[in-house]
Amino acid sequence: MPETATAPKVKVPPFGRFFLPGPTEVLPEVLEAQVGPMIGHRGPDLQKLMARIQPGLQDVFRTRRPVYVSASSATGLMEAAIRNGVRRKVLCLVNGAFSERFYKIAVACGLEADALEVPWGEAHTPDMLEDALRGKDYDAVTVVHCETSTGVLNPVAELARVAHAAGDVAILVDCVSSLAGAPVLADEWGLDFALAGSQKCLAIPPGLAVGVAQEHMLERAAAKKDRGIYFDFLEFERNLEKGETPNTPAVSLLYALAAQLDRLREETMEARWARHEAMARRMWQWVDEMRGRGIELSILAREGYRSPTVTTIRPPEGWTGPKLAAALRERGYIVATGYGKMKEETFRIGHMGDHTVAELEELLGVIEEVLVL
Amino acid sequence: MPETATAPKVKVPPFGRFFLPGPTEVLPEVLEAQVGPMIGHRGPDLQKLMARIQPGLQDVFRTRRPVYVSASSATGLMEAAIRNGVRRKVLCLVNGAFSERFYKIAVACGLEADALEVPWGEAHTPDMLEDALRGKDYDAVTVVHCETSTGVLNPVAELARVAHAAGDVAILVDCVSSLAGAPVLADEWGLDFALAGSQKCLAIPPGLAVGVAQEHMLERAAAKKDRGIYFDFLEFERNLEKGETPNTPAVSLLYALAAQLDRLREETMEARWARHEAMARRMWQWVDEMRGRGIELSILAREGYRSPTVTTIRPPEGWTGPKLAAALRERGYIVATGYGKMKEETFRIGHMGDHTVAELEELLGVIEEVLVL
Repeated sequence: MPETATAPKVKVPPFGRFFLPGPTEVLPEVLEAQVGPMIGHRGPDLQKLMARIQPGLQDVFRTRRPVYVSASSATGLMEAAIRNGVRRKVLCLVNGAFSERFYKIAVACGLEADALEVPWGEAHTPDMLEDALRGKDYDAVTVVHCETSTGVLNPVAELARVAHAAGDVAILVDCVSSLAGAPVLADEWGLDFALAGSQKCLAIPPGLAVGVAQEHMLERAAAKKDRGIYFDFLEFERNLEKGETPNTPAVSLLYALAAQLDRLREETMEARWARHEAMARRMWQWVDEMRGRGIELSILAREGYRSPTVTTIRPPEGWTGPKLAAALRERGYIVATGYGKMKEETFRIGHMGDHTVAELEELLGVIEEVLVL
Repeated sequence: MPETATAPKVKVPPFGRFFLPGPTEVLPEVLEAQVGPMIGHRGPDLQKLMARIQPGLQDVFRTRRPVYVSASSATGLMEAAIRNGVRRKVLCLVNGAFSERFYKIAVACGLEADALEVPWGEAHTPDMLEDALRGKDYDAVTVVHCETSTGVLNPVAELARVAHAAGDVAILVDCVSSLAGAPVLADEWGLDFALAGSQKCLAIPPGLAVGVAQEHMLERAAAKKDRGIYFDFLEFERNLEKGETPNTPAVSLLYALAAQLDRLREETMEARWARHEAMARRMWQWVDEMRGRGIELSILAREGYRSPTVTTIRPPEGWTGPKLAAALRERGYIVATGYGKMKEETFRIGHMGDHTVAELEELLGVIEEVLVL
């Protein structure tokens, strides 16, 4: 082959320290991994790349099933969940903006859907689900593991048990902002379909989604005659058998994913979960400390239902989410305002991806400075 | 902001000269453009990027309409075409693998669909379409502008006229391997929906699709109650009004697209079309020259229906598509075997993207060497 290898200079423009609950900061070496050569997407080159990725993804989901890789955002695989996984009627557990999106997708796909709503900031308990399923003919339940809008972590393992105890009810789980930051044990918990995006705790650039379906879901999918092909479970399966993707893959993002999965293997999932847990604990402790000093911050989610990956906080009087986010941006720190209807009354800190407690500490110091000024 | 800018060394591994009909070779500066910082996908950072991209895309499609940018491969927007653009029953013009895919998608979306088939290598003429529509209740027609499997360029402008003359029949056009290589005049030709992918003549990495719908199509879409949200025309429109995308965008690929559209503006679309035309003419002339020397190559597509972007060729006796592709690969040149059922009996050369006549000449010299050995 001709020597066309070069070592071009790539400038990463200056950017603030990123504490959004997605997209997260991506390490320079992972960003740079995107700059690989084009390869044909049928045949050995792609197969090699997919083979490198697959074991890492299986570890992230703790599954023995093949993991689908979709050239789409996670919303695409939410639609896949609905089109493949709902026979007729679905119950959507709604406690924030993303769980509401699941409901909207079900409706937009022409299915019967009911929303079981609790206020933003609260979780769905197993009892609630048990009551809601009793005597009803739902064949699927949607739930968001970590509600990125509120920082609530739903008790997905327990909810899955309740769904399955109710009969042939599939549980379809959005793990977008939990996967690779909080334990997601797809097989052990019996998640019938679990999905996530690339730009949260996986910490690669956006544009990829990953998902895993339990084997019995394939029969369910096959019976759906209007599921399309782009998000078809059976197409994913058939092509994964050859180590390929059904459609043209986003190769640059696969390169980044491969590089990042190598890093994750070195860190181990257990250590990654522990690091997120440590960041969250420091986050909560800091809010207590601030309150002790008379700065009235409060965490939206109740204890016991707080996500290790994102915290939604009400700012003290005189502040709004956008005002605080703007003040921090001026100092080079990017946090999120509240989401949707909570935009003004909250702000959100993503302590996810490759961040460390030390980096979070730096951010907390700056917030303290801003609030005390 | 803190100075976190660095100039890391990125290695582009050695690769052969790429003459696939997609993915095409991507210029190093375009590959490198992918390595930009993460940005939030709601608000000014993304809006600025989208505003930079939009005029270039409108020029590529020759449209005044907003151009949708989808985090998916082009197949995703083919599904969008079907889910939004077909009321009930669609006629699919099938003359190769990708036009057949359009038919399969329609069926997989639960719609009534008929395939009007002509042999691979032939085009659909306006007369054929007129006959097929007469007295039938189709509300849409699908067609592939350039059949990447055969190198046939369908007369899309004329087919659009025939469809519209037949009443309220929408024409849904896959311009995947023609856009930015052959003229696609979406508004002038009245293409009701036209779509393409990023990794063909646009010559950026795969993972993005672009599409443009005429305004009257929005009403059609609104009446479809199971069109989902990921590929919903109305979601694309609503978000483009704010300069955003409906779902998390593939930001790295948007950076590459922005860089490449800057290059295209400098080249001008007219010059880009002319360059592709010149490559194709040289390609065809070379086949004649080879035949003159007794090497029996033949072009699958008939004169008058040949694409300026890809040529499908039957090799001389003793050769198959895979055998020739393998021999060229050994010499560092990547061409495609035949596609699907024509894998053995043909090979395909993509003369598209940023290739020049001089680069094509280099490839042709090597093929000559291989065949004459």
